[in-house]
Amino acid sequence: MSVISITDVLAGKYPVSEAVTVHGWIRTRRDSKAGISFLAVHDGSCFDAIQAIAPSDLDNYQSEILKLTTGASVKVTGILVESPGQGQSFEIQATKVEILGLVDDPDTYPMAAKRHSIEFLREQAHLRARTNMGGAVARVRNTLAQAVHRFLHSKGYFWISTPLITGSDCEGAGEMFRVSTLDMENLPRTDKGNVDYAKDFFGKETFLTVSGQLNVETYACALSKVYTFGPTFRAENSNTTRHLAEFWMIEPEIAFADLSDAADLAEEMLKYVFQAVLDERSDDMNFFQQRIDKTVIDRMNSVINNDFVRLDYTDAITILENCDKKFENKVAWGVDLNSEHERYLAEEHFNGPVVLQNYPKDIKSFYMRLNDDGKTVAAMDILAPGIGEIIGGSQREERLDVLDARLAEMNLNQDDYSWYRDLRRYGTVPHSGFGLGFERLVAYATGMQNVRDVIPFPRTPNNAAF
Amino acid sequence: MSVISITDVLAGKYPVSEAVTVHGWIRTRRDSKAGISFLAVHDGSCFDAIQAIAPSDLDNYQSEILKLTTGASVKVTGILVESPGQGQSFEIQATKVEILGLVDDPDTYPMAAKRHSIEFLREQAHLRARTNMGGAVARVRNTLAQAVHRFLHSKGYFWISTPLITGSDCEGAGEMFRVSTLDMENLPRTDKGNVDYAKDFFGKETFLTVSGQLNVETYACALSKVYTFGPTFRAENSNTTRHLAEFWMIEPEIAFADLSDAADLAEEMLKYVFQAVLDERSDDMNFFQQRIDKTVIDRMNSVINNDFVRLDYTDAITILENCDKKFENKVAWGVDLNSEHERYLAEEHFNGPVVLQNYPKDIKSFYMRLNDDGKTVAAMDILAPGIGEIIGGSQREERLDVLDARLAEMNLNQDDYSWYRDLRRYGTVPHSGFGLGFERLVAYATGMQNVRDVIPFPRTPNNAAF
Repeated sequence: MSVISITDVLAGKYPVSEAVTVHGWIRTRRDSKAGISFLAVHDGSCFDAIQAIAPSDLDNYQSEILKLTTGASVKVTGILVESPGQGQSFEIQATKVEILGLVDDPDTYPMAAKRHSIEFLREQAHLRARTNMGGAVARVRNTLAQAVHRFLHSKGYFWISTPLITGSDCEGAGEMFRVSTLDMENLPRTDKGNVDYAKDFFGKETFLTVSGQLNVETYACALSKVYTFGPTFRAENSNTTRHLAEFWMIEPEIAFADLSDAADLAEEMLKYVFQAVLDERSDDMNFFQQRIDKTVIDRMNSVINNDFVRLDYTDAITILENCDKKFENKVAWGVDLNSEHERYLAEEHFNGPVVLQNYPKDIKSFYMRLNDDGKTVAAMDILAPGIGEIIGGSQREERLDVLDARLAEMNLNQDDYSWYRDLRRYGTVPHSGFGLGFERLVAYATGMQNVRDVIPFPRTPNNAAF
Repeated sequence: MSVISITDVLAGKYPVSEAVTVHGWIRTRRDSKAGISFLAVHDGSCFDAIQAIAPSDLDNYQSEILKLTTGASVKVTGILVESPGQGQSFEIQATKVEILGLVDDPDTYPMAAKRHSIEFLREQAHLRARTNMGGAVARVRNTLAQAVHRFLHSKGYFWISTPLITGSDCEGAGEMFRVSTLDMENLPRTDKGNVDYAKDFFGKETFLTVSGQLNVETYACALSKVYTFGPTFRAENSNTTRHLAEFWMIEPEIAFADLSDAADLAEEMLKYVFQAVLDERSDDMNFFQQRIDKTVIDRMNSVINNDFVRLDYTDAITILENCDKKFENKVAWGVDLNSEHERYLAEEHFNGPVVLQNYPKDIKSFYMRLNDDGKTVAAMDILAPGIGEIIGGSQREERLDVLDARLAEMNLNQDDYSWYRDLRRYGTVPHSGFGLGFERLVAYATGMQNVRDVIPFPRTPNNAAF
């Protein structure tokens, strides 16, 4: 077989007035009184279906074509012609319509041609990519992923695959999934009666990683410009529109770079990947604009066309304390900001993306670089209108003595970080990086409200279906 | 900071006779009797270091520069000049050498400038990217990954992220890692006294996936051309040079495609990605050729320049039965081939890549399409000289009645595959795909003998360090 894509046919890559064969699924069938059927055939290569016009003199018109329903699969051969209809460039005057697969009981077919609730589609995750929305999300997600790789590769960053299974527990075991091959009905025990993880697959307790950052720092301190793009995990019992137990993260890490360099890279990257979506997926973006979120294209353009504001946490507190807005959560220097504060800053006060930086050290992680004031660390969150925090990053503490003091301050054990400390013992360098949750990025670019709808098979509390 | 990469300096992207600043780590320091130090500075952006010439009249020559040892980090400013020496294009006449970080106790620095055993480097996985070998592997690995994405994207394939945590157990639980948040010291029990997985995070037993194939088929049956590129897991107690507990897989899946189409795509992809490595990483490939495997570039060129032989399993058995070679494992129609047989075919009989296809159904998975002979399935393995099997694939069984018969034959429960069966109930289409183990690909391209040395932090039985 040699299959051509409907997107290429619609783009005019095949000659008019010649024969063409497409494969796909029926989106709709409409029959005219004159004895002609109009078949909308899509193959997922683009948003639009191509129209195939099947005349009643085809051999199988009565026996098969009139039985075609939404979701049936077909192979259509015919003459490619320019379409007289609005909104489509080309159509096919069918000379042959072969049925590949019908739909078992069309009345109960879950993806019948009508609007479905987003919740219903989520339960049919194995079929939802066949819908307009599911297909559009999948294509935009792909475009974003390709653009991330392309952008970072073009700037000399190396993609590094950090481990998923980890023996380190650097951010608190309460949020992590255990990975084990022990027989749960018959756990091995130590002399003291505890579970004997020495008998587990890796000879010790292991978990699924919550971040590749500490690992990828080792590669930044060797190859200078690196990034991860892989799955990460949180065992948090969060049933929100912004949390998944399994999600994908992009984590660039840059040697010889300070916080400002990391913010520059983040800003440039966001602009690049949003421009790629607008350039490459205008079909899908028109759909999102019309059906999901009227502001989605404007929001992306506003990110692309505006310089990101750089604002110190301390100054943000001043703005929030002095504004007229009533917040549910009080602000004062030293508290972590809530979503309402972040959205006020990005959506109302600045009406554009904000890089909020230099947070109080007590609300941030041990590895963030202590500023000269001794009170704040070189951390940043990037806030975007319409979604809030989309990126978190920092300059990393490269001074061994300061790092050790922070570990002690936070009651963390030096021995657990011996290899991380080695990076500071052997030719330490200033370095910075950030993390971008990929599903939040896709949600932002599509206007979808729930990250469960922008990943093929979401994993959340009590749900690991498919 | 605005950091430039040494690869760009060596490539002549900066003007000669002007000032330039590079950042990096000392590979070696050599002092001349004339009171000049030659510093080889590398930043991982390419294989080569740049030479910086530090004259003794620099302020910190005695106090600092003479203390520089392998691994120390520096910022070097100076005039870029063409190099009179062999093997390097440009060098820097240093006017300033700033020390960023020294090496704590150079005598015990694990990455001192000498040859290390591969096994020793594996134990120092957080530092091994600083070595010639570790850096070269990481850069080639990146080039292969970028080339895979670029190739498939250019052909209209969409990258799909299939789930890592799965409730399905489609290939046998014995090989899978359990994922759980249950308190191991205090497991909840059902009335019958068994572990109560209803109380686990996902409300049921969950595992780490062994393949994204079944999941990604759902997207092929909607978007036509898709692929996965992500981590997969095997809890096999295999201590070999070819197995990892955590590894990365690439799994393209093509709708409206038969086995031959999948083999065509695999052949074209392998040729493309190997050509990319030869084009983009000649520096690293020269190193692998000289130090690791004298045949590595020839082997890649042989894949690039030769058509892959297509051979039926049945014919392969005839060849093996009639050849002069003595095998440890006997061959006869119906047995699975061993590595010795595969290597004989690829290395001795054909001396090139072989697509071995149409295997006996009894040694293959339930989802592979039954051929008309009723005895074989449309499965393939691609064998490459020097490594053996590198790709496995098949046409998938798209006929519901045949699939159900195969499930029954193999004592598999239809209910466990209800969503997979739906793909055959609703507009089923012929489709095919394959899986490529990414670490085996990197090993093949670098000549490295052990997959543990081509992934940053390998996970194997009793090892989840870092």
